[in-house]
Amino acid sequence: MIELFHNDMSVCSAKVRIVLAEKGLGWKSHTLNLRAGDAQRPEYLRLNPNAVVPTLVHDAKVVVESAVICEYLDDVWTETPLRPGNPLARARMRLWTKQLDEGVHAATGTVSACIAFRHQHMKKSAEDLKRYIDGIPQPERRERIQKAVEFGMDSPTFAPALRRLDRLIADIERALTDSDWLAGESYCLADAAYTPYMIRLEHLGLGDMIKPRPRIADWTARLFARPSFKTAVADWFNPETLAVFEAHRESAREKAARILKA
Amino acid sequence: MIELFHNDMSVCSAKVRIVLAEKGLGWKSHTLNLRAGDAQRPEYLRLNPNAVVPTLVHDAKVVVESAVICEYLDDVWTETPLRPGNPLARARMRLWTKQLDEGVHAATGTVSACIAFRHQHMKKSAEDLKRYIDGIPQPERRERIQKAVEFGMDSPTFAPALRRLDRLIADIERALTDSDWLAGESYCLADAAYTPYMIRLEHLGLGDMIKPRPRIADWTARLFARPSFKTAVADWFNPETLAVFEAHRESAREKAARILKA
Repeated sequence: MIELFHNDMSVCSAKVRIVLAEKGLGWKSHTLNLRAGDAQRPEYLRLNPNAVVPTLVHDAKVVVESAVICEYLDDVWTETPLRPGNPLARARMRLWTKQLDEGVHAATGTVSACIAFRHQHMKKSAEDLKRYIDGIPQPERRERIQKAVEFGMDSPTFAPALRRLDRLIADIERALTDSDWLAGESYCLADAAYTPYMIRLEHLGLGDMIKPRPRIADWTARLFARPSFKTAVADWFNPETLAVFEAHRESAREKAARILKA
Repeated sequence: MIELFHNDMSVCSAKVRIVLAEKGLGWKSHTLNLRAGDAQRPEYLRLNPNAVVPTLVHDAKVVVESAVICEYLDDVWTETPLRPGNPLARARMRLWTKQLDEGVHAATGTVSACIAFRHQHMKKSAEDLKRYIDGIPQPERRERIQKAVEFGMDSPTFAPALRRLDRLIADIERALTDSDWLAGESYCLADAAYTPYMIRLEHLGLGDMIKPRPRIADWTARLFARPSFKTAVADWFNPETLAVFEAHRESAREKAARILKA
């Protein structure tokens, strides 16, 4: 049996759900409310000491870290492979997937928190907020969220994160000159992995980074048209979170335009 | 033909050389002098825009990033596999290898530069040093080296990097309770990848983090006794760099002991 401990709109959770959907695997859902600190509860920390989602439990074996989980799923269920057979394309795929863990995910977390999630955190009592922030095990992540809550889009971390994402978008646009998908002529784990990050940009009012670039605009349209996008991503959209994105989208769009023009 | 653009004592270069040696592959060497800025030269940037070593060129196909190169080598040369066949052990292997790229490598770079490499940089003219630092494409890496040169072991980045490595050592000690090697009962890419980091700790006078922990002490002894360690690591030791390590080892040992006791 496959069980997934995850969150409705977390990008790393959606990444794994897409891979499960693309491979046609059934799974049992355990959802966590991240802003309420569910990932910091002792019973979850026993599965995932990093206090992050998702965690996969397969026949009682625990696998953490979404990039590792995705390769694990492709190692175990070899029908419908989502990794290119060609070693060079596979290397290209891994260059993309590892980038997420080396800055792109953190940048996405920063802009998401600065634009939107801070407003959810700010509804907490001072005590609850402090408990939540103190409960984040990684010092860098703790500081990132603290700053985002305190300063929002004026946080010193916001502009560098936005520029990192803009550089990513430019890199993807360039990569799609050579091929239809990130690592070559077929959809692979890299395309799956980037899908939730692309819809997040739209949700945050940062779609202007994508629109003027024709190849990435076409690629995201193809990603969002796949059946896996509906079942693994859109069906999990949380109306309350969408409303928070919606409320702050316009000011984010304006602020981002100013920063990226500067 | 396999060609490797690398540096004698760079940990990421040694990692790839170990994998080549373990797989018994022949290759053509192109060495770069990193402190002299060879990785920033236009002809190298065409191969590796990140201005880092190593770069693998296999039959004119370029593969960058040591973690990706190692999996590529194992994907192409399937005899003497260095990844566990068992998907769970393979996931465990990848949890280790990705950690290097998500903090451990940067921490190793910080302590190496703060303790030793800064003394090589400080011999440069102010102009040459500025040109070198300005030539580092990644803002975080640029700042890391700038601070290390300026403040040495008093850099605000030194103590956190040292603590990160101490946490790694504790994690490895714990992992080796269950098995002889990092991902299970056989030597794999993870063990290969960590080998140069372990000898670096000894070179820097930080061996006291390893010595009192019996399992990691035994594991490093087994790593260093492998034939691949001689041909891929020790045979490339640069006497000049070893002398710089040697000159600063005792003060590093003392400073580290104070920080880790605090």
